[in-house]
Amino acid sequence: MKQNSSTKDLNLSSNERLFIDNKSKFAPKNYQNLLPDGLKIYTFHSGLKKASEDLLIIIFDELTNSKSVYSKTSTPSAPIIWDKKYNKGKVKALIVNSGNANAHTGKRGLDIINQYVSFLAKKINCKREEILVSSTGVIGELFKPSKIIRQIKKLDKAEPKSIISAAKAIMTTDTYIKTSIKHVIIKNIKINVYGIAKGSGMISPNMGTMLGYVFIDLDLSKQNLNKLTNNNIENTFNSISVDSDTSTSDTLVLFSIKKNKIKKIDNHSLKKINDTIFEVMRDLSLKIVKDGEGISKLIIVSVKNSKTKLQAKKIGMSIVNSPLVKTAVAGEDANWGRIIMAIGKTQEKINQNKISVSLGKNLLCKNGSASNKINNKKLNKYMKNKIIEININLHNGNKYHTVYGNDLTYEYVRINADYRS
Amino acid sequence: MKQNSSTKDLNLSSNERLFIDNKSKFAPKNYQNLLPDGLKIYTFHSGLKKASEDLLIIIFDELTNSKSVYSKTSTPSAPIIWDKKYNKGKVKALIVNSGNANAHTGKRGLDIINQYVSFLAKKINCKREEILVSSTGVIGELFKPSKIIRQIKKLDKAEPKSIISAAKAIMTTDTYIKTSIKHVIIKNIKINVYGIAKGSGMISPNMGTMLGYVFIDLDLSKQNLNKLTNNNIENTFNSISVDSDTSTSDTLVLFSIKKNKIKKIDNHSLKKINDTIFEVMRDLSLKIVKDGEGISKLIIVSVKNSKTKLQAKKIGMSIVNSPLVKTAVAGEDANWGRIIMAIGKTQEKINQNKISVSLGKNLLCKNGSASNKINNKKLNKYMKNKIIEININLHNGNKYHTVYGNDLTYEYVRINADYRS
Repeated sequence: MKQNSSTKDLNLSSNERLFIDNKSKFAPKNYQNLLPDGLKIYTFHSGLKKASEDLLIIIFDELTNSKSVYSKTSTPSAPIIWDKKYNKGKVKALIVNSGNANAHTGKRGLDIINQYVSFLAKKINCKREEILVSSTGVIGELFKPSKIIRQIKKLDKAEPKSIISAAKAIMTTDTYIKTSIKHVIIKNIKINVYGIAKGSGMISPNMGTMLGYVFIDLDLSKQNLNKLTNNNIENTFNSISVDSDTSTSDTLVLFSIKKNKIKKIDNHSLKKINDTIFEVMRDLSLKIVKDGEGISKLIIVSVKNSKTKLQAKKIGMSIVNSPLVKTAVAGEDANWGRIIMAIGKTQEKINQNKISVSLGKNLLCKNGSASNKINNKKLNKYMKNKIIEININLHNGNKYHTVYGNDLTYEYVRINADYRS
Repeated sequence: MKQNSSTKDLNLSSNERLFIDNKSKFAPKNYQNLLPDGLKIYTFHSGLKKASEDLLIIIFDELTNSKSVYSKTSTPSAPIIWDKKYNKGKVKALIVNSGNANAHTGKRGLDIINQYVSFLAKKINCKREEILVSSTGVIGELFKPSKIIRQIKKLDKAEPKSIISAAKAIMTTDTYIKTSIKHVIIKNIKINVYGIAKGSGMISPNMGTMLGYVFIDLDLSKQNLNKLTNNNIENTFNSISVDSDTSTSDTLVLFSIKKNKIKKIDNHSLKKINDTIFEVMRDLSLKIVKDGEGISKLIIVSVKNSKTKLQAKKIGMSIVNSPLVKTAVAGEDANWGRIIMAIGKTQEKINQNKISVSLGKNLLCKNGSASNKINNKKLNKYMKNKIIEININLHNGNKYHTVYGNDLTYEYVRINADYRS
């Protein structure tokens, strides 16, 4: 392993600090950085955003196995349509721009992608279908592919950058940079797992999008990549919600870099790899929700003893998305009736006389009605915390699920009710 | 028809005006009133609310056919559990209290109902199962049935009141009284159809609830009552949304008063009756959404040329409930990308390249991408209106549906983030 691939604390230049002013109170205090092996990161200012870098191009040294997961929306953006149509899980390059989402742009949106992808494919001598694309930013507007092509021409002379630079180039309304770096030792080889993500919410004119890219510098089979992605997407990116609004551009890709090779990966090793990927994916997904628009409190809803995992998820999501629960948490009001309401509106088959509800360790509702042991002083103190845990016991089975969200504040309304102009 | 059953404009006493200060800008300017025949309205101050009348008791002259529709929640309030268990569609009396929702009170909540219902049944000489009950207000708290029983004892000496008084007694955070009075002539008989409703949203400590009671002074069979309710509930009360949160107490009852009898109601007459009931139910349901918490604009979403009516409803509801669409409307921002996003997140099978989106008559999106004929001056002027119409054409079939909602403002957050204490 080369020195430049190990993690280290980097001093951010003043330019790199540009975007982390006015940041969420959940913003990380420290960042690790990484100049990874097996891929080269380039970032540019293409002009799609006014002042800052807005274009990320990653070139992989070798053709890389990848597994992508896209938004389930029925109105996907042009890049998602493109990737789904052409890419078969082999990737030589990734192009992500911010400043324009290329969404609801019809066939002309696909033409734009075709132009800059064809240009890069020719330049780096790969097939068009080996280039993945994502876009995030303003919707419904066309842009000139020459903006991206002009930067691609500069690739030869450009210096490879770190993953912090990569994460910064894809930000839109994010108030802080989102990276995650972990490692796992498999058969005495140190395997790095690292990722970047963006997502916060949506300030006009931007269409909020969630983008996440996770890299593991170990050669993995398609089958293992699928398994590792499917194992972890549900408990991480698919279990967060800022405002229940699903973006048209949501994308998560797991890339397997052919740097380290292990002949036969046994189940025990795969489990360790899986856990590390989970950690990175959870870290990134939590960083998104902690940067949720207008956030004052992080809400963690754990639903246990449900009939199925899906039942726990539905109920958890209903709670974490309820405007009345979200405003109660913002107001530091331990309003458990609204939590019961949000459980009920799922229409799930449960016995309401068995439900218990706790806020942190404060039991508020037992067997479906008010607990008579509520310590209001302790409870009020708990509600002032930055992180509020809502714990539900359905006494209806033995499955569980946890979801993550945030409260609903004036600030959310201010951000999203702003005029576009 | 007696004089006291005809509609007339009444002067509201200063006491009657108590609740209509600080009202929604959609509050009606004029009220008709009615002292109906065939039933007697009584209202009282039981003490469940501090300052105002909080108890409505309606006694029907004769046993009345009724059809009830309740919240589909899996955590219903005690009155809904009671009504569903005992009432078989024959009603001698209705008891509605505000100030306490009797929700999530377990078996003790049902005991409370049993006590005051038994007392009234004995007093007016009917069966317990012939008394319908509803409650709205604070949740999770028990109350003493003696509060209601004490008022029942006063029934003998009480003066029957008008439907405005009835509507007022069931209000919680409503900013105006919700009544509707229409009539229809069937075979030269004037049939009155009138109703009251409450609902606005939910200010702590209240659990927001929607209650609606519609009366027709014509003897109708159970079969016809069912038909008339089922025909109209979907397009009225089931097509409104203030904040996507389903109450645990939602109740709508259609009562058929045995005042007028028509031997055989032909299909043409039934159609006329149906249309009148629809008008009253739509009027009441719109009055609820126009009193939605923090409302600054009414949003009407019409989805046409869908595959099925349910598809149109799902898409309409997704738009009208999207926090991003709601805040955009509050900010007078014609952000059609968010509307497309809300269509997409339903995951309905549609062709996004066929969608058109108009705000009022302003076409913004055609064939899934931006229209090139947008008149921004006209559009900006339109967005300042009090009522915003979002018109979607899916070009995907020939069904349609319309839903009603309101915008999301600071005021909604303020109301619902207030401390309960």
